[in-house]
Amino acid sequence: MNSEASYEGGMEEKEKEEVQTNNQHELLQRKKNAVLVDGVILNGPAADSKMGEKFVEEVSKVIMEDVIKKAADVTEKVCEWQPPEKLKMLLDLELKDTGETYQRLMEFCQNVIKFSVKTNHPRFFNQLYAGIDYYSLAARFITEALNPSVYTYEVSPVFLLVEEAVLKKMIEFIGWKEGDGIFNPGGSVSNMYAMNLARYKHFPDIKEKGLSEMPRLVLFTSEECHYSVKKAASFLGIGTQNVYFIKTDERGKMIPEELEKQVQRARKEGSAPFFVSATAGTTVLGAFDPLDEIADICEKYDLWLHVDASWGGSALLSRKHRKLLQGIHRANSVAWNPHKMLMAGIQCCALLVKDNSNLLKRCYSANASYLFQQDKFYDISYDTGDKSIQCSRRADAFKFWMTWKALGTTGLEERVNRALALSRYLVDEIKKREGFQLLLEPEYANICFWYIPPSLRNMEKGHEFWEKLSHKQEENNKSCKPMTKDDGVV
Amino acid sequence: MNSEASYEGGMEEKEKEEVQTNNQHELLQRKKNAVLVDGVILNGPAADSKMGEKFVEEVSKVIMEDVIKKAADVTEKVCEWQPPEKLKMLLDLELKDTGETYQRLMEFCQNVIKFSVKTNHPRFFNQLYAGIDYYSLAARFITEALNPSVYTYEVSPVFLLVEEAVLKKMIEFIGWKEGDGIFNPGGSVSNMYAMNLARYKHFPDIKEKGLSEMPRLVLFTSEECHYSVKKAASFLGIGTQNVYFIKTDERGKMIPEELEKQVQRARKEGSAPFFVSATAGTTVLGAFDPLDEIADICEKYDLWLHVDASWGGSALLSRKHRKLLQGIHRANSVAWNPHKMLMAGIQCCALLVKDNSNLLKRCYSANASYLFQQDKFYDISYDTGDKSIQCSRRADAFKFWMTWKALGTTGLEERVNRALALSRYLVDEIKKREGFQLLLEPEYANICFWYIPPSLRNMEKGHEFWEKLSHKQEENNKSCKPMTKDDGVV
Repeated sequence: MNSEASYEGGMEEKEKEEVQTNNQHELLQRKKNAVLVDGVILNGPAADSKMGEKFVEEVSKVIMEDVIKKAADVTEKVCEWQPPEKLKMLLDLELKDTGETYQRLMEFCQNVIKFSVKTNHPRFFNQLYAGIDYYSLAARFITEALNPSVYTYEVSPVFLLVEEAVLKKMIEFIGWKEGDGIFNPGGSVSNMYAMNLARYKHFPDIKEKGLSEMPRLVLFTSEECHYSVKKAASFLGIGTQNVYFIKTDERGKMIPEELEKQVQRARKEGSAPFFVSATAGTTVLGAFDPLDEIADICEKYDLWLHVDASWGGSALLSRKHRKLLQGIHRANSVAWNPHKMLMAGIQCCALLVKDNSNLLKRCYSANASYLFQQDKFYDISYDTGDKSIQCSRRADAFKFWMTWKALGTTGLEERVNRALALSRYLVDEIKKREGFQLLLEPEYANICFWYIPPSLRNMEKGHEFWEKLSHKQEENNKSCKPMTKDDGVV
Repeated sequence: MNSEASYEGGMEEKEKEEVQTNNQHELLQRKKNAVLVDGVILNGPAADSKMGEKFVEEVSKVIMEDVIKKAADVTEKVCEWQPPEKLKMLLDLELKDTGETYQRLMEFCQNVIKFSVKTNHPRFFNQLYAGIDYYSLAARFITEALNPSVYTYEVSPVFLLVEEAVLKKMIEFIGWKEGDGIFNPGGSVSNMYAMNLARYKHFPDIKEKGLSEMPRLVLFTSEECHYSVKKAASFLGIGTQNVYFIKTDERGKMIPEELEKQVQRARKEGSAPFFVSATAGTTVLGAFDPLDEIADICEKYDLWLHVDASWGGSALLSRKHRKLLQGIHRANSVAWNPHKMLMAGIQCCALLVKDNSNLLKRCYSANASYLFQQDKFYDISYDTGDKSIQCSRRADAFKFWMTWKALGTTGLEERVNRALALSRYLVDEIKKREGFQLLLEPEYANICFWYIPPSLRNMEKGHEFWEKLSHKQEENNKSCKPMTKDDGVV
């Protein structure tokens, strides 16, 4: 806030007077001892910390009432919907020359919450995450307040050790004896990391020389993969044409024989196949590629096997469901997002790497001497910042660590089992209910189904039926979306 | 937490009894109406929300006392230092099968705070950010609680509009009439975005075909640039050899004549020069490259001009200091991190692009139909997720919007002016004080100086002196570090 005078709301008259007297006293003191440079008084606080603290405290109360408590209340709305132009007016977004009053700032916070989608709500089904985890949330508040950046031990001692502990445990669940890894801003970025690591492993010169003198690199993934594989190929200079999409079976799983054919085709073309991105939990169907058979092919043709388990990785924590990822220990790298089914909060994504020869660091280091001095007074292997494509990096591992500490592995396992039991229940309900048609029996938490409007219910399910149904869905803006909420059974 | 029984601390006896009675009642009800699938009771809450809420509330209190209030207290320690092995033991990092007690979880939170570096502390000088901004912090708590992902309007209506408003205002301060942009996870990633955009602009085929059929791409940056430019060249498949580092003058600024020579050299070699990354505020010296002269060369040779103003961009808000970035309006793209001098909290970084022909979207889109349906009931130009290399993306613009609303442009300007006045003050003090030697007169907030130990103070400043001094610095682990804190005058 720009000046103390603009603090108008949220206080009793008496309190106001007290604050004013204190302020006047402070001002006098300040003037007396002022150090003036270029017209700025340098000593004394830059901000009004008392008012700031009060603001944080009041907003925290609003958050507790309007976001956290309402999150559990199924009778509340998921979203107070407004179209863009109207919402702009309601929010008063314009940034002005002078600061707003305390009262107005509180209103902004209330409005932002009011018109935002409550992704914690039991009926939020839009994406591959949902619900609230209180322990993760508390950890997130801590990191926001501490404002760390995870690159060197001296500036982030706790969070670097926490990241190490979490990575170690995730590696254990993948089934590797050892490994390395890094938390980064998303599954998409994790896939990029892996792709770049793989080409560096095959052609270490690439870091210095780039691709222009290299043979054409080719990589493989299924037709049902996440779109980030394509984005990665483009961003890394490989080109989307050099992503060979492998056919999937009727359940959306990559067909290993088709993969082998495409690898052979790439070889015949004189290009350099180097990387397979298998998917464990596809975005739409929730399909798991057959990792063991894919790993055989990767070994045979010396290809890096990456598993995009951003969505499906959480099943590793369930003794009942981890068989979905059978063979994952044979992968060279794995992307796994605890911010999805494990509810760690956006973002919380790890790339895990089987290699233990410091490949991550060799591939990504730039040896910036201002940050990663070699003459520190502690073991500099804890300065993991040079493994990253980022400089500042968030302490994303901590929130997941906190949840894991709170629930234990057993509690996380229950979370996964519960999500999949809920999916099973939904499938049974869809089957029972008129006007709903299941697309296929799910193996994970994605349930794809059609809603059949009354006008089409008596039609034969031939070509005309599907055409009309598809058209109706478009009209209703109800395309096949994953249903993954691990709550909301009424 | 794993079970209600483990909730041992933080309550009075009477409260405990009450909770137990309520719990028993709830349990009975639940059993009565239970829907059982695969051994999981599906109806009823997945987590104990009352205990969870209490935990969040208590942790919030600890944050207020131990992080936020202590942040303003210069008598507190910046860090309770412990070496890695000892800290591991103190923290009890191991992740176990069963959850920990409520009391133990509270202790974890307290310890994490205790042993973390207080980056809000007035004496925190380690990196290019410092201090606490209460309004930004409140906004950060809101986004953590709402847990949004900014890709489609339907799931993030408020935060997409806020991002648009902030980008628009930043574009105004750069001096463009229009433009585009995206908040992303850091200055390093912003530089990557820009580099990829530039090559796509020059060779649109690159997205599909990749670099293997392209001429060798060459880019230019100064010797004093941030290390991320090199990382970007490697990650994007261009190769670090194809980064031509341009000599700087004695103040650390790129020498335009040297740039032109190197562009000509690259052309003679038959390679394809395409991109210049100028720096506005270098990491060590705080130097600003001469943008106008560099822009002339970029225009002459048809090169994309990117300005890495991650650190220096904030000066644009000061009428007094914006001349440091004279010519920035001629850039094709700008990286600017409000999480540094403007204290928006890590991370808050924008890439801004002058182009208004939807270049960002054309370059980055993958048209994932499950997320970016074309048949929605609102203007889908608000679905900005397809401009990004990420899928989930954090609402980083909101915290900066909140600070801007609270302080107004004038307040942000004061923040910048204050930081630079403090730097001026420090320079004057260094000059006055025995045993300190200024490296050069700063133009920004980076002050580089030597500490001269008593044993060297009477030596002549020849070769031997500098060698000994440099050796001493290594011994003392006191290399030349930027001093940028906008507080801490004692």
